[in-house]
Amino acid sequence: MRRILLFSTSTVHGTGYMEYAMPYIGDFLAGIREILFVPYARPGGISHERYTELFRGPMEAAGYRVRSIQDADDPIAAVDTAESVFVGGGNTFVLLTALHAGGLIEPVRKRVAAGMPYMGSSAGSNVAGLSLGTTNDMPIVQPPSFEAFGLVPFNINPHYVDPDPGSTHMGETRATRIKEFHAFNPQPVVALREGALLRVERGEAVVEGARGGRLFMAGQEPTELQSSDRLDELLES
Amino acid sequence: MRRILLFSTSTVHGTGYMEYAMPYIGDFLAGIREILFVPYARPGGISHERYTELFRGPMEAAGYRVRSIQDADDPIAAVDTAESVFVGGGNTFVLLTALHAGGLIEPVRKRVAAGMPYMGSSAGSNVAGLSLGTTNDMPIVQPPSFEAFGLVPFNINPHYVDPDPGSTHMGETRATRIKEFHAFNPQPVVALREGALLRVERGEAVVEGARGGRLFMAGQEPTELQSSDRLDELLES
Repeated sequence: MRRILLFSTSTVHGTGYMEYAMPYIGDFLAGIREILFVPYARPGGISHERYTELFRGPMEAAGYRVRSIQDADDPIAAVDTAESVFVGGGNTFVLLTALHAGGLIEPVRKRVAAGMPYMGSSAGSNVAGLSLGTTNDMPIVQPPSFEAFGLVPFNINPHYVDPDPGSTHMGETRATRIKEFHAFNPQPVVALREGALLRVERGEAVVEGARGGRLFMAGQEPTELQSSDRLDELLES
Repeated sequence: MRRILLFSTSTVHGTGYMEYAMPYIGDFLAGIREILFVPYARPGGISHERYTELFRGPMEAAGYRVRSIQDADDPIAAVDTAESVFVGGGNTFVLLTALHAGGLIEPVRKRVAAGMPYMGSSAGSNVAGLSLGTTNDMPIVQPPSFEAFGLVPFNINPHYVDPDPGSTHMGETRATRIKEFHAFNPQPVVALREGALLRVERGEAVVEGARGGRLFMAGQEPTELQSSDRLDELLES
């Protein structure tokens, strides 16, 4: 029943906000015309209102109606009646804190389990996983729990970047960070490069878009992911 | 009374572990010959034992005795009797979780307030600040609180990197992340490039080492920090 579309990033270099993503959204949503937008992640600290307007631009141009959860008198009721949800990127700690504070974790889980399409980019993709434990963001606020929606039984690392062999920087590479994650957590990590996305429906999980990613399993060497690769078996754990 | 030495990184590119740091440690510790090492941050997921051995190498070569808090029957008593403390880098979430679990926050605060020299690198420098809110690390475990030692009344961002104007990566720059931090937190952030350190004693806070850093104050443009710059006024807030 689950229908989930997770983008590594809202924007790829040299294109407009969500521009590259629109064909995937159009194909995924098919007949659905309304999207409930969750602006809580506030990229760059912008207001919920400005963020919603940013999202509304390309969506309305493509014929979708956008409601903001921020404008709803009852956000849980807005989730309960949404035709589809899109959780925008920004800071994952800010996003997850707001989701917990609003009591929205369970309502979204229930709707997605019942077939409501869930879409997210960046932080909005990260929180579709089991926990925020593989976010790249700065912990600028403290959520009551790191537990996330768990719409898929693994973790997502958005904006994945490969180690740079020419770097003189001594901070950890992304691959090292995910290896450290696996010293404390058992679940697989699907790392998506910018331009890549993961589409889940009909019990299938498919990598789409450009540039692919990497699959990190605890205790194993990571494996390369390319567009059209299937990760169906990960859905069963 | 406070005596604090905070390194951005344990290692600069092309040199051995702690090699560049030894002259600063020698000058800072003066007559003190014993260091209590805190290996909790476990860089790369290595064991506490291996990490302590790594640290012991250059320290013993320079004539210091190294005790590991991990070998102490009573870690709090080890802090209470330490001549000096060095908190090693690694994952800040793992480190702070262990510090809270061991009840070590208050004991370290008290000893530092009474004049015991505190040294840290990377994660060990970050936790000397008010919170871990400006770490760069992945949140691979959930600490009970983001509150850190607060030995200085501001936050530290280690491994600071400047925005790369040639980058096509859409993830946030470090400067943007710290700006987002200031949308939710009031305290100054002292960001130190690799090679730089902050030395606090006699009521003075001095930037030392190579490459400097940046000072981020809420609502203001960041200012450049260079070696020998003084941040004494930040100690008074």
